[in-house]
Amino acid sequence: MSKIKRALISVSNKQNLKPLLQSLKKNKIEIISSGGTFKEIKKLKFDCTEVSEFTNSPEILEGRVKTLHPKIHAGILNKRKNKNHQNDLKRNNFENIDLVIVNFYPFEKTLNSTNDHKKIIENIDVGGPTMVRAAAKNYNDVTVITSPIQYDELIDQLDKNNGSTTLEFRKKMSQIAFTETAYYDAVISDYFNKVSNTNFPKKKLFYGNLVEKLRYGENPHQESAIYSKHDNLSIKQIHGKQLSYNNYNDIFAALTISKSLPLNRGTVIVKHANPCGVSIKKNNLESYQSALACDPTSAFGGIVSCNFKIKKNLALELNKIFLEVVIANGFENDALKILKSKKNLRIIDAKNFALNEIIKFTSTNEAILTQSEDLAKFNINNFRIVSKKKPNKNQLNNLIFALNVCRYVKSNAIVLASNETTVGIGSGQPSRLDSCQIAIDKMKKFINPKDDIVAASDAFFPFVDGIEKLVQSGVTAVIQPAGSIRDKEIIKFANKTDTVLIFSKTRHFRH
Amino acid sequence: MSKIKRALISVSNKQNLKPLLQSLKKNKIEIISSGGTFKEIKKLKFDCTEVSEFTNSPEILEGRVKTLHPKIHAGILNKRKNKNHQNDLKRNNFENIDLVIVNFYPFEKTLNSTNDHKKIIENIDVGGPTMVRAAAKNYNDVTVITSPIQYDELIDQLDKNNGSTTLEFRKKMSQIAFTETAYYDAVISDYFNKVSNTNFPKKKLFYGNLVEKLRYGENPHQESAIYSKHDNLSIKQIHGKQLSYNNYNDIFAALTISKSLPLNRGTVIVKHANPCGVSIKKNNLESYQSALACDPTSAFGGIVSCNFKIKKNLALELNKIFLEVVIANGFENDALKILKSKKNLRIIDAKNFALNEIIKFTSTNEAILTQSEDLAKFNINNFRIVSKKKPNKNQLNNLIFALNVCRYVKSNAIVLASNETTVGIGSGQPSRLDSCQIAIDKMKKFINPKDDIVAASDAFFPFVDGIEKLVQSGVTAVIQPAGSIRDKEIIKFANKTDTVLIFSKTRHFRH
Repeated sequence: MSKIKRALISVSNKQNLKPLLQSLKKNKIEIISSGGTFKEIKKLKFDCTEVSEFTNSPEILEGRVKTLHPKIHAGILNKRKNKNHQNDLKRNNFENIDLVIVNFYPFEKTLNSTNDHKKIIENIDVGGPTMVRAAAKNYNDVTVITSPIQYDELIDQLDKNNGSTTLEFRKKMSQIAFTETAYYDAVISDYFNKVSNTNFPKKKLFYGNLVEKLRYGENPHQESAIYSKHDNLSIKQIHGKQLSYNNYNDIFAALTISKSLPLNRGTVIVKHANPCGVSIKKNNLESYQSALACDPTSAFGGIVSCNFKIKKNLALELNKIFLEVVIANGFENDALKILKSKKNLRIIDAKNFALNEIIKFTSTNEAILTQSEDLAKFNINNFRIVSKKKPNKNQLNNLIFALNVCRYVKSNAIVLASNETTVGIGSGQPSRLDSCQIAIDKMKKFINPKDDIVAASDAFFPFVDGIEKLVQSGVTAVIQPAGSIRDKEIIKFANKTDTVLIFSKTRHFRH
Repeated sequence: MSKIKRALISVSNKQNLKPLLQSLKKNKIEIISSGGTFKEIKKLKFDCTEVSEFTNSPEILEGRVKTLHPKIHAGILNKRKNKNHQNDLKRNNFENIDLVIVNFYPFEKTLNSTNDHKKIIENIDVGGPTMVRAAAKNYNDVTVITSPIQYDELIDQLDKNNGSTTLEFRKKMSQIAFTETAYYDAVISDYFNKVSNTNFPKKKLFYGNLVEKLRYGENPHQESAIYSKHDNLSIKQIHGKQLSYNNYNDIFAALTISKSLPLNRGTVIVKHANPCGVSIKKNNLESYQSALACDPTSAFGGIVSCNFKIKKNLALELNKIFLEVVIANGFENDALKILKSKKNLRIIDAKNFALNEIIKFTSTNEAILTQSEDLAKFNINNFRIVSKKKPNKNQLNNLIFALNVCRYVKSNAIVLASNETTVGIGSGQPSRLDSCQIAIDKMKKFINPKDDIVAASDAFFPFVDGIEKLVQSGVTAVIQPAGSIRDKEIIKFANKTDTVLIFSKTRHFRH
């Protein structure tokens, strides 16, 4: 236990000061403060000494230097049980500061509200983090409070312990304090890196705010949590059971695809982070029905993501099968009512979600792999039609649709499409030929399309056998990046079979 | 340009000070310093004023408070073109500090060398980060140097610009400085979180040191880099072309499996982050040959990881097919010579690599998903034999082997094994039945084992059809977590067909 005699308060966020000040007064704790906090404390009619009076040193440089003073920092940093420290204190006529209540200039908030570089830089707090770090280092003797949400717990501590705090509490507050200072500087570092277009600095900080601890990870024996790179996630759950790790993973996989499709037309069904049905149709009901038809077996227990507002007729249709999650750009009231009749169905409004994160990262054992996301629109001018047979407009649309889905399927990926609907998806195979076979098997099992069937491959065909298999199964047009030493053989095969062949030039692996 | 008149130097890492001091002297830059740095500068016979003399304030608390003084921080933080600031300076008789050369108490190093909490805490630098943050904030007027590797560039700047630095340089140094302070506090925060077993704090920092910028990401149009959670990676490339993003991703996928197998026996072949062949055999050559036999087509261009030292006979065998990467716990000299005859083959020594990272994370759009890794050994006592037919020892060993591989295959995953070798792997399918079919097709294509065939599934069979397909294809024993409402039907089917059925109880999804 360490009895608190003196507190230093310097807060940018001035919420909930009153009950805090009442508690300090009750416990006869002297308060020192400065600037806006000092004014606020006086306004609330509590006693307070100005920092400049305490240090006998003026506040200068328009507030840039006020607490950076040995009297303040010796007051915080001295070890109460160290004789040398105590002698130093006496010799200099310094006094203990036992409680530091500080939150910082709102750098992140400023960043979100302005592009004015000078204003942003001015909001880098120097004095605040210094006091917090000093107090956190000396948690053995000093209590550090970095957020108004900790006031209640502090008041409780003071009440329970006659104006003292427990070591356990001080250590916990210290732990949070270092997370705050690290987070604060990570945001600043990120800002500087962004301004100078530095994606890969020598030291890199990735940071997030806890959204929620999850019940478990990919499996029940794994602990898990989800963080947001911002204050919170832009997707909003409006009904159903708590989202699981796998739900979140699937939701973001689904949104990556559905948000890449033409607005108000696209439906994606995802299972195990892979799409098992995708379609774009003007008619929303048809859009869903077509996506479902691609693999209705796999869709069972899956996640449906629509890039439009869900209406009553679709809600009725969705309710016909068991789904884990339904995502949409909003829901009409009667549609929502229908969907909500399924108690456990997780319903997500994703109208505020946008694909705009550029750098993604993943940890793999001791390493962190980071790369820019594969989100850019295709540059169709770069596509090269290499077959004698030229695609008609319908084929070209379908090829582009298939290639776009294909880049979001785990490699090796083959996507068959017809009428801007997937009719066969082969995913996650070590051999491209196997992915071809899987896509074909799916198509034969569920669809057998009447119209033109096209195929997209996420990487080149190393041999003729893959494309041969596709053409034998009815595919009339193929798009692939090219780059194999057998490209010429493949072109020859396409010409022999009157197949359209386009080289898209850009590979789209995804693992 | 801003002419530098006065520098403050306070460095924990005292490397390369001499040429720096020579350059400062040449440019008539006054130096202030304290403690160990002051002594070192004097020892090198350069002029230097002690901080306590400069501030006219003693160094106290055994060095905890020395630079935390308004004269130091006003000297750094004042805006040189702001009249109020300049008046404040004059009024207080303060002087400019234009250059801050500081590196911090070695917190991370201390952490790696001791468990002594007090010693660790003592190595939290307070004064250093404060000066660095103040200088970095005021980069418009002040130069901040945070590492000896920046000295040459600083010297170059002073030489080129008559004792000044350019704004561009100062801004770049400021950017690095904030990354340093953020990283420093992230390590401290992580330490406190570890000590208190807090895996998921409210704000979370993930951090790494750049290992290298990669040529590109999963695809050539994506930028990429790899970071290490430590100083560097424990794997060591000893030959071949630069590793790519996909190489690294596959290497860590391969190592996760091979390091989980009994030491000195295991070989894993990986393609597109999935295993396409795994085997454990006492004889190392057989271990590789068996792994290869599982799917020799997919192994082409793959990654081989052995959890033993590679000898000459295996090297000769490995050279027979095209491989991207060979990984082992070391190589005998003659083996290495043989492998090196392939100019491009990437050879990796992973004897220092261990599976010990507990929390992994992945970014997905705006979210960061984090969870503990699925690495723990199976608790075989929890397994429940639910069929009338009991497994013999051979079956049991094979079931455990198959389940261990299965948990590292992308879901839905089915692994067929015989003689502690995979004979069919079905990966990455939205439907479990499809994964069964793929595994069976592989087995029929390449192997047709003579001995007992067993199967493992990463999650429960929702229907009888999956296990039925397996048994029809010759599988005699199955392990799966269970948990389906049709578990009873599945047990009934096992009994009807005299199949061994074990419920492992733990699910092993991986995406």
